[in-house]
Amino acid sequence: MWFMRQAGRSLPEYRALRERHGFFELAGTPELCAEVTLQPVRRHGVDAAVLFADIMTPVLDMGIGVQLVEGVGPVVDEPIRTLADVRRLHVSEPDANVLEAIRIVRRELDEERALVGFCGAPFTVAGYLVEGRPSRDFARTKSLMYREPETWHALMETLSEQFVAYVRAQADAGADAIQLFDSWVGALSPADYDEHVAEYSERILAAVGVPTIHFGTGASEELVRRFAGDVTGIDWRLSFSAVPEDRAVQGNLDPAVLLGPWENVVDRTLGVLADAEGRSHIFNLGHGVLPQTDPDVLTRLTAFVQELVHA
Amino acid sequence: MWFMRQAGRSLPEYRALRERHGFFELAGTPELCAEVTLQPVRRHGVDAAVLFADIMTPVLDMGIGVQLVEGVGPVVDEPIRTLADVRRLHVSEPDANVLEAIRIVRRELDEERALVGFCGAPFTVAGYLVEGRPSRDFARTKSLMYREPETWHALMETLSEQFVAYVRAQADAGADAIQLFDSWVGALSPADYDEHVAEYSERILAAVGVPTIHFGTGASEELVRRFAGDVTGIDWRLSFSAVPEDRAVQGNLDPAVLLGPWENVVDRTLGVLADAEGRSHIFNLGHGVLPQTDPDVLTRLTAFVQELVHA
Repeated sequence: MWFMRQAGRSLPEYRALRERHGFFELAGTPELCAEVTLQPVRRHGVDAAVLFADIMTPVLDMGIGVQLVEGVGPVVDEPIRTLADVRRLHVSEPDANVLEAIRIVRRELDEERALVGFCGAPFTVAGYLVEGRPSRDFARTKSLMYREPETWHALMETLSEQFVAYVRAQADAGADAIQLFDSWVGALSPADYDEHVAEYSERILAAVGVPTIHFGTGASEELVRRFAGDVTGIDWRLSFSAVPEDRAVQGNLDPAVLLGPWENVVDRTLGVLADAEGRSHIFNLGHGVLPQTDPDVLTRLTAFVQELVHA
Repeated sequence: MWFMRQAGRSLPEYRALRERHGFFELAGTPELCAEVTLQPVRRHGVDAAVLFADIMTPVLDMGIGVQLVEGVGPVVDEPIRTLADVRRLHVSEPDANVLEAIRIVRRELDEERALVGFCGAPFTVAGYLVEGRPSRDFARTKSLMYREPETWHALMETLSEQFVAYVRAQADAGADAIQLFDSWVGALSPADYDEHVAEYSERILAAVGVPTIHFGTGASEELVRRFAGDVTGIDWRLSFSAVPEDRAVQGNLDPAVLLGPWENVVDRTLGVLADAEGRSHIFNLGHGVLPQTDPDVLTRLTAFVQELVHA
């Protein structure tokens, strides 16, 4: 078990570091990135560390300016909307700082704990690049897919090339698994996923020899059946029965449940465990830890699940 | 067939009126509301008019200030977060202006065309009232559900009472069907829907003698199976097979498809019609018309579907 976004704003020790360093400075300085990645393991005793990074981290070196704006999300200086824009992007070497952070974490982590590497999925990253910021409908992105498929596929090819190298380098540096994080894939119809996205997600997940997790938010059952990788991560909207039997499952407690009373946390957690009965299951939330979550609840939940599972 | 949000910003004749009148002025003046409701019927020849209203319209008379902020959505002056806040709300008579607009539209509309009445679903409206504005995670709303179920249920009771009277009055004034519009229900797990929401949606849909449509955005298959009413409206993420056989279906072309080339519109439309084969089906989009949509595409699509279906 681990929690998506376990490293981050729910932890006072993270917020203390964040007062002195910008997000990309923390993520891009090996010792600081390793420290932030290890904080939740120390505090909660979760079974895995997850690399502290943003899904935009690997595109920062491609010639794109990105700001993380509080309350908005990633904002791109010059959105990518034409073939000329795509050609401005260059595939670069995986960031040495990220890889060094992975080596530090792997060295400091107990052997029985896993280090989960992390990469944004190509649709979600392309969506941010085209829209310039988070969007509810991804209308510009879809419009580009439909009107200029050549531009769209060139963008997805370029991102995939960058991300294949990125996840391979993470595995080589010591990541025990890779999670492909598809925050916005739920905006797509199954037909659009098949035609414009599937091959790229699959290529990245097939590029490494370690176990892979494909996680999407708001993805329908139809989409989840199309996911690649060894483990399918789903959110609280679905039941694990949506995931084909040959896959392991990850999830799926609604992170908002952690804002409520402990009795309800227990009740819903037991519901998740019952739903996963008989499957290979990584207990997790259905999306990232909400910043306003009391970290003590995360610690308590970790102990509760670990005791139940090891009993 | 009709299009959600067919009355509105995609039409130049609407934008011309909007230059001279605020949104709530248009929606609250019977002749103007009727005119805006009829514009897309005249232009596109769709089979139904849908009442021009906002989902916040019926709460304006409950003692709540709401602004529609461009690019944001409804913003509530004083969010509802305590039992005292809920008790400040008062159930009021249905707005006479809305009912007069319905009578005008029903009088001017050909007999073979339907007038669809419109009401926001209680979860979506309550979510706006608690959050104060649109939210991605509805964390405050869920937190209230979990921590103060008494406050939550009091809020849902009050909204349901208001909405029951509102949809009944719409049907009495001449609406041929009622659509309950649940924009944000997709944020909920099936367990939360069962425990905190289902009974209220059901009560409103059961309150009228005309056919009812329950539409939700981003709703999972599990949620759609729980919907009430005669017709289940789904978005493009799902297939009609998600809807129980005893229901009619509505939808579900991705509105973003209309931003692309006509060949793709045809292809995806045929896909929707094939998916609905053998079911009672109201052709529609999977969500509202995007403001940037070329209205000529809507007219062309209306003729295309009507010719196919009547051929």
